[in-house]
Amino acid sequence: MKVLVINCGSSSIKYELFDMDREDVLAKGLVERIGSDRSILTHRVTDREPWVETAEILDHRQGLNKVLALLVDRESGVLQSVEEVAAVGHRVVHGGESFSESVRIDADVVRAIQENVDLAPLHNPPNLSGIHAARHHLPHAEHVAVFDTAFHQTMPDYAYLYALPRVLYNKHKVRRYGFHGTSHQYVSQQAAALLEQPLETLKLISCHIGNGASCTAIQDGKSVDTSMGMTPLEGLMMGTRCGDIDPAIVPFVMAKEELTLGEVTSMMNKHSGLIGVSGLSSDMREIVEGTFEGNKQAKLALQMYTYRLRKTIGAYAASMDGVDAIIFTAGVGENASLVREWTCRALTYLGVELDKEKNAHLPRGPQVISTPESKVKVLVIPTDEELMIARETKRLVESAL
Amino acid sequence: MKVLVINCGSSSIKYELFDMDREDVLAKGLVERIGSDRSILTHRVTDREPWVETAEILDHRQGLNKVLALLVDRESGVLQSVEEVAAVGHRVVHGGESFSESVRIDADVVRAIQENVDLAPLHNPPNLSGIHAARHHLPHAEHVAVFDTAFHQTMPDYAYLYALPRVLYNKHKVRRYGFHGTSHQYVSQQAAALLEQPLETLKLISCHIGNGASCTAIQDGKSVDTSMGMTPLEGLMMGTRCGDIDPAIVPFVMAKEELTLGEVTSMMNKHSGLIGVSGLSSDMREIVEGTFEGNKQAKLALQMYTYRLRKTIGAYAASMDGVDAIIFTAGVGENASLVREWTCRALTYLGVELDKEKNAHLPRGPQVISTPESKVKVLVIPTDEELMIARETKRLVESAL
Repeated sequence: MKVLVINCGSSSIKYELFDMDREDVLAKGLVERIGSDRSILTHRVTDREPWVETAEILDHRQGLNKVLALLVDRESGVLQSVEEVAAVGHRVVHGGESFSESVRIDADVVRAIQENVDLAPLHNPPNLSGIHAARHHLPHAEHVAVFDTAFHQTMPDYAYLYALPRVLYNKHKVRRYGFHGTSHQYVSQQAAALLEQPLETLKLISCHIGNGASCTAIQDGKSVDTSMGMTPLEGLMMGTRCGDIDPAIVPFVMAKEELTLGEVTSMMNKHSGLIGVSGLSSDMREIVEGTFEGNKQAKLALQMYTYRLRKTIGAYAASMDGVDAIIFTAGVGENASLVREWTCRALTYLGVELDKEKNAHLPRGPQVISTPESKVKVLVIPTDEELMIARETKRLVESAL
Repeated sequence: MKVLVINCGSSSIKYELFDMDREDVLAKGLVERIGSDRSILTHRVTDREPWVETAEILDHRQGLNKVLALLVDRESGVLQSVEEVAAVGHRVVHGGESFSESVRIDADVVRAIQENVDLAPLHNPPNLSGIHAARHHLPHAEHVAVFDTAFHQTMPDYAYLYALPRVLYNKHKVRRYGFHGTSHQYVSQQAAALLEQPLETLKLISCHIGNGASCTAIQDGKSVDTSMGMTPLEGLMMGTRCGDIDPAIVPFVMAKEELTLGEVTSMMNKHSGLIGVSGLSSDMREIVEGTFEGNKQAKLALQMYTYRLRKTIGAYAASMDGVDAIIFTAGVGENASLVREWTCRALTYLGVELDKEKNAHLPRGPQVISTPESKVKVLVIPTDEELMIARETKRLVESAL
């Protein structure tokens, strides 16, 4: 079964075509700057040179049309016909309380995603554009929505509710949703396989730390708490996001600096985190480099980042009354050995003992980086959200047969 | 040495007169509704009936004058003359970064407290009124300021800074300060005495949970992290305060409900926490009662309250790489056995084992409520901020001799 996974941003389409019989990637790519006359399309096929094209692409429908043309093209293609695409898996950011798992898309599902636009005004509208475009161009295929929030719908009420007036939940659905669910679920399954233990017996803490970052407590394979909240701003310090702050700072800064609602939101989402503290970069590679070069603000940013991540791991150990394994994943988690080392260095009370040599010289693929004696295992698991979406899509299509 | 401790709110004066030779309380009381023609003064002397008076008291200076009159009155008094008051200890809420310990008050100190008014607009101005009134009426006495924030000035930068643009710290001093410092310091000293171990060797987590609530990590006798932030809104769920929320909720709710800065601040400080979630009460006694009576919202509020406190304890264990003892204090901490039980019930991974019988039937005074086998000790220590302020005042006056 050939499955196309698409992930639409406001001006982009990320896509990946899988042959799910063997979970092979046939082709993948990215359309950027949609809405301009100089949109860029980068297309990759295994063992061939990448294909880069500049064109006028005014909307997601035109963009997807270009992608499909490339997929059946004699030179860049991997398909005889688009009819071969049996199913499309759509990444959707916010499923609100409507979706606790992936679903086949019909008119009701589209309406429900629309109803959650208020909770993710930057993400759900382009996700919907992608769905409309794909259903237009691939009417024969099954379409499946896989939500960033769905995995976290198992959280108990005392973990997902805020201590705000109840009316805000009833009227505006103000609650913790959590994000990166597809990734947290994927790495938790991989971790169980690597540890050769049933997922249903494990207490896991997964740290998905990339440009966005979230930490999830996973007990018996279910999300029981997560650090991102109603929006992806809450929780950990991130590349450009502040994570947790005293909420009273928001009105304080708005008054002092005469900021609008949009400006203060932008400040917290785009000018905070690593870039806000270091003044240097939002990219962890540059922060680590700066730290080695003696840049004090870079070091401070790295200390804050790892200290806050460590506290969150400690909090989730208390959520589950213990932890069996800590998982690092995503860009920073998979590549920044210093982040993993600093995060773990004061977790000896839990029985964490990092194998420093292995942590510093990491082979490819899922790895245990704690010592054999370590009571709590520490793992690095490369995430693959596209593969997880393709698996979910295949599962749903097959279960409907 | 006789020391008068005063704690002024916007319309109140709380006072307590100590004979510090034996740390005896001679008299104490409260002036309420200052600024009205029906102010109420309640005055207590050991072994005598309480004295209640209604009068027109228009400001703190008039209020303190009334108090001093009662202290030397033939019937209600305990002094021959106000000249016997050798020193006055003033509780001051916000010392900002200016004060890392208590200080004798002079013009520079008054100016520095004034400069921190922006950080505590509701608290520092009445604290200053109290200082002016007391220096006016008791010019012969030494005056000492004891700050709620001072104990926390030992926090490292990576714990007190927010991941916001650096300019907010440089320009507006936006950082974590922490509060309840006098209480956290007092109970940590009492804990060391009860455990018969030097404070300098202990890792303590103190939970000051009253109507306001904060949790502090205390290593080697020093505050290394605390849950309240720039203001007393951050951190734990409280009687009427929300504590931590996704900061993006603030602009979201302001837009949806068309709230002003003042209204959203008021919502988070006065209509959230236990009362916001339960709809029943901000008083933990009523929440516990409601839980026993089957009120679901009360039970939910109690679950959220204890779950969040437990997570904070877990986070601070990760801050210090372990914990030797957990301290409960203040109204809720000293009296609500159910709160202590629920908070501790999933901390077995740390080695916490509560003596449920002892927790439920608590004798007076400082107590160990964990079993003898418990690796981490759990303590209940009645706080006494007034005594701590009197001790600090005596110490500073004597050191100046």
